[in-house]
Amino acid sequence: MKAHVYVTLKQTVLDPQGQAIHNALKKMQYQGIEDIRQGKYFVVKLSNDLDAASARAEIERIARDVLTNPVIEEFSFQLEDSE
Amino acid sequence: MKAHVYVTLKQTVLDPQGQAIHNALKKMQYQGIEDIRQGKYFVVKLSNDLDAASARAEIERIARDVLTNPVIEEFSFQLEDSE
Repeated sequence: MKAHVYVTLKQTVLDPQGQAIHNALKKMQYQGIEDIRQGKYFVVKLSNDLDAASARAEIERIARDVLTNPVIEEFSFQLEDSE
Repeated sequence: MKAHVYVTLKQTVLDPQGQAIHNALKKMQYQGIEDIRQGKYFVVKLSNDLDAASARAEIERIARDVLTNPVIEEFSFQLEDSE
């Protein structure tokens, strides 16, 4: 089983990295970009011994306790069945 | 309109950052993790003046030319209609 974890800065937190990319894109004449924010993305491969419920619980625990700084970040995740 | 861009290291490229996280998780007694790879995640807000086809073209161009290092990385993206 595979999990995709997305960690983003909270909306209220400034994202200077995203702003730098946004400014660079504007200078490079890319059109129609209003905002860009950068986050982190993790692909976690889980043992197939885990059933869906415990995989979900484990991923949520890891995302909350290890991958995310709860002061400034939030996370979401998706589980994907693979062979 | 919003676009979600995912940039990951190619499968053949070593990911020391992901390995460090994997080792840390093992030491912290998390169960059932076989592999973890870190990538980047961008949320791009697009002007509503763009139609779906040109938004798709613009995002693909930005992802390929600016956000991704084609030597070691690959990207995927999703467009999402928002109000």
